[in-house]
Amino acid sequence: MVYKYSDIVGTSNTDITDAVNNAFQEASKTIKNIKWGELGRVTFRVEEGKKIEYQTEVRIGFEVIRTDEG
Amino acid sequence: MVYKYSDIVGTSNTDITDAVNNAFQEASKTIKNIKWGELGRVTFRVEEGKKIEYQTEVRIGFEVIRTDEG
Amino acid sequence: MVYKYSDIVGTSNTDITDAVNNAFQEASKTIKNIKWGELGRVTFRVEEGKKIEYQTEVRIGFEVIRTDEG
Amino acid sequence: MVYKYSDIVGTSNTDITDAVNNAFQEASKTIKNIKWGELGRVTFRVEEGKKIEYQTEVRIGFEVIRTDEG
Amino acid sequence: MVYKYSDIVGTSNTDITDAVNNAFQEASKTIKNIKWGELGRVTFRVEEGKKIEYQTEVRIGFEVIRTDEG
Amino acid sequence: MVYKYSDIVGTSNTDITDAVNNAFQEASKTIKNIKWGELGRVTFRVEEGKKIEYQTEVRIGFEVIRTDEG
Amino acid sequence: MVYKYSDIVGTSNTDITDAVNNAFQEASKTIKNIKWGELGRVTFRVEEGKKIEYQTEVRIGFEVIRTDEG
Amino acid sequence: MVYKYSDIVGTSNTDITDAVNNAFQEASKTIKNIKWGELGRVTFRVEEGKKIEYQTEVRIGFEVIRTDEG
Amino acid sequence: MVYKYSDIVGTSNTDITDAVNNAFQEASKTIKNIKWGELGRVTFRVEEGKKIEYQTEVRIGFEVIRTDEG
Amino acid sequence: MVYKYSDIVGTSNTDITDAVNNAFQEASKTIKNIKWGELGRVTFRVEEGKKIEYQTEVRIGFEVIRTDEG
Amino acid sequence: MVYKYSDIVGTSNTDITDAVNNAFQEASKTIKNIKWGELGRVTFRVEEGKKIEYQTEVRIGFEVIRTDEG
Amino acid sequence: MVYKYSDIVGTSNTDITDAVNNAFQEASKTIKNIKWGELGRVTFRVEEGKKIEYQTEVRIGFEVIRTDEG
Repeated sequence: MVYKYSDIVGTSNTDITDAVNNAFQEASKTIKNIKWGELGRVTFRVEEGKKIEYQTEVRIGFEVIRTDEG
Repeated sequence: MVYKYSDIVGTSNTDITDAVNNAFQEASKTIKNIKWGELGRVTFRVEEGKKIEYQTEVRIGFEVIRTDEG
Repeated sequence: MVYKYSDIVGTSNTDITDAVNNAFQEASKTIKNIKWGELGRVTFRVEEGKKIEYQTEVRIGFEVIRTDEG
Repeated sequence: MVYKYSDIVGTSNTDITDAVNNAFQEASKTIKNIKWGELGRVTFRVEEGKKIEYQTEVRIGFEVIRTDEG
Repeated sequence: MVYKYSDIVGTSNTDITDAVNNAFQEASKTIKNIKWGELGRVTFRVEEGKKIEYQTEVRIGFEVIRTDEG
Repeated sequence: MVYKYSDIVGTSNTDITDAVNNAFQEASKTIKNIKWGELGRVTFRVEEGKKIEYQTEVRIGFEVIRTDEG
Repeated sequence: MVYKYSDIVGTSNTDITDAVNNAFQEASKTIKNIKWGELGRVTFRVEEGKKIEYQTEVRIGFEVIRTDEG
Repeated sequence: MVYKYSDIVGTSNTDITDAVNNAFQEASKTIKNIKWGELGRVTFRVEEGKKIEYQTEVRIGFEVIRTDEG
Repeated sequence: MVYKYSDIVGTSNTDITDAVNNAFQEASKTIKNIKWGELGRVTFRVEEGKKIEYQTEVRIGFEVIRTDEG
Repeated sequence: MVYKYSDIVGTSNTDITDAVNNAFQEASKTIKNIKWGELGRVTFRVEEGKKIEYQTEVRIGFEVIRTDEG
Repeated sequence: MVYKYSDIVGTSNTDITDAVNNAFQEASKTIKNIKWGELGRVTFRVEEGKKIEYQTEVRIGFEVIRTDEG
Repeated sequence: MVYKYSDIVGTSNTDITDAVNNAFQEASKTIKNIKWGELGRVTFRVEEGKKIEYQTEVRIGFEVIRTDEG
């Protein structure tokens, strides 16, 4: 088996876990066979004195499946 | 005083904090005099396109109390 | 533009995100023009077998605005 | 909002900043909505006793905008 | 010159070097002009008490050659 | 599910992979339900000018299964 | 002798060294007896496809001199 | 509760522990409610072939107590 | 040969080396065949403005000797 | 006793362990009293689509023995 | 092939890249067959309120060529 | 000015600071113009249940002064 990584940053206005979930949801739209993920840096952005969004770096691990290998 | 470490991975289907709590709860079953914990790597596992569980590495610090030292 | 950092530890009895929010709220009391924050070490403290509080190190980034530069 | 990362190595015969600029210029050819970049490892390559080029690892952060989400 | 990175995980039932070789072989199927690679994390997976496979994270560096630049 | 870690150093006179295998074999003697392992520091020891053995730090992850939870 | 640290982010539209210089210039306005500095993370910000500014984290080391200690 | 960090470098002509103690003593002059400290980089400075002083980076953690919160 | 690690935190009211020694002494009470140790994080705890104790994380390496292997 | 370090990169066309062995063999030609080694970064170089050689950074530790100290 | 490392600190009154160039120039005076370099820590030194020099740690990689191997 | 590094391991039967001092003393025998040092890994070696010696990695920084440059 062979796996690849894709690095994505999910965001959420409310919660760190929610931001990770959003990263996973976004990754799922274009990547098949996701097997695991790992949380990297967690940051938040502030505008005009209000915390706007949490940003979570997530490293997505997915299996590479080749149809010509069957 | 002397402290020791035990490394444990808690899991949760819903939330990162919940996974850390589960690690602490599990550690409490066998370790007395826990004093602190530290979050390590945060990962999640995916099966058939669905995020199954969050996994949080937690380093538990506990005090070693010897009855023969009293 | 010039930015500075202030390192602060927020706490919460219930949730990691909540502890980060408290760090941001506390920082907001004395620091103007906060632009971003970054989560550092996450720990928790235990007393008499009960998890008392989550502690989250947060690095606050804020813009330095000098009135004499206008 | 969701962001992704792309890792690229820019080179320059003259200057570190120039190598970072080249990485950004190259990334701009194929990636839209670049929002930030971060410098990683800085190396240089030598041939026949002469420093040939600076190599700068740059992590490009860009926003993912989906037309079907409007 | 400009280079890019692709992160891939190769696996092998027998040997760490073999897992790295498989990562390189897999990368070679879709990436041209590979110039170097770097070994990252080395893990192994166990099922029913037997070590199933070594997993080696490999960062592949390849040159970006644009036909319109000739 | 809950997992724990055990850190062990395997050795081999011939090969790095062999040293990791020995760490896993030794861990298997006393630990049930091993699920994964991760390679840490790799060192070797020399005596009288001859390389005596490779030493590989391996972090073993295993599932904690409690019979009283069934 | 006793030293303290202050973390500051300098910016520049043109050059990494220039951004470090600006961090030092800004620090010099309020901190006396600066003795050294160390470059941390180097990032850049992009707006509407153009690289707006380099941002360099600089840790400033300065000597604490107490008038009541003479 | 909320805590903040202050980074200070203590020095000593004789001993590493002594340099850490001096960092703590200096911090105590201006910071109330210090709760813990952590040792960072340890360096020493040499002049004319003689080791002049040990320098220990110490990160001081202190509780922020607001009188208006009573 | 196979080695294992045990992580222990030694404390001392007076000196960093003394805290490491106490960690080793405590480990010696329950672990046979200790071969080496490595210093990790060094912290100190403060109560009512006085430094109470140094805390030194020490990773103990010991040989695993099985009587059934003789 | 006093030890010193020498950093060397061994190469091999076939195997990671073999590259480490070559680093040790090369170091042995000029360094006496080698006591241990530690594996650092592992990379490989590719030319014309073929993996040419593994490169392993090895830190060699050796004892300094002075004849005038006998 | 076998490579070795030499660690050198170049300085410059004006620019980070210039300091790296100076490190390379100095290394070239005594080391043959330099193949690559890598930038480490970047610091600057201040005297009497003026930034005196940039200091760049550079790790030089060079090929070891033995005449008796021809 | 140009500086170089030399990595040395000092040992002591009694104290960590003493081991660093011994590393510096040993380095002074062969290296002129030492300007600073930095403490790396701290380990200790145990034989027959007794802690034999502390080992401290010390990175020595020294100025390179060329007589032909005067």
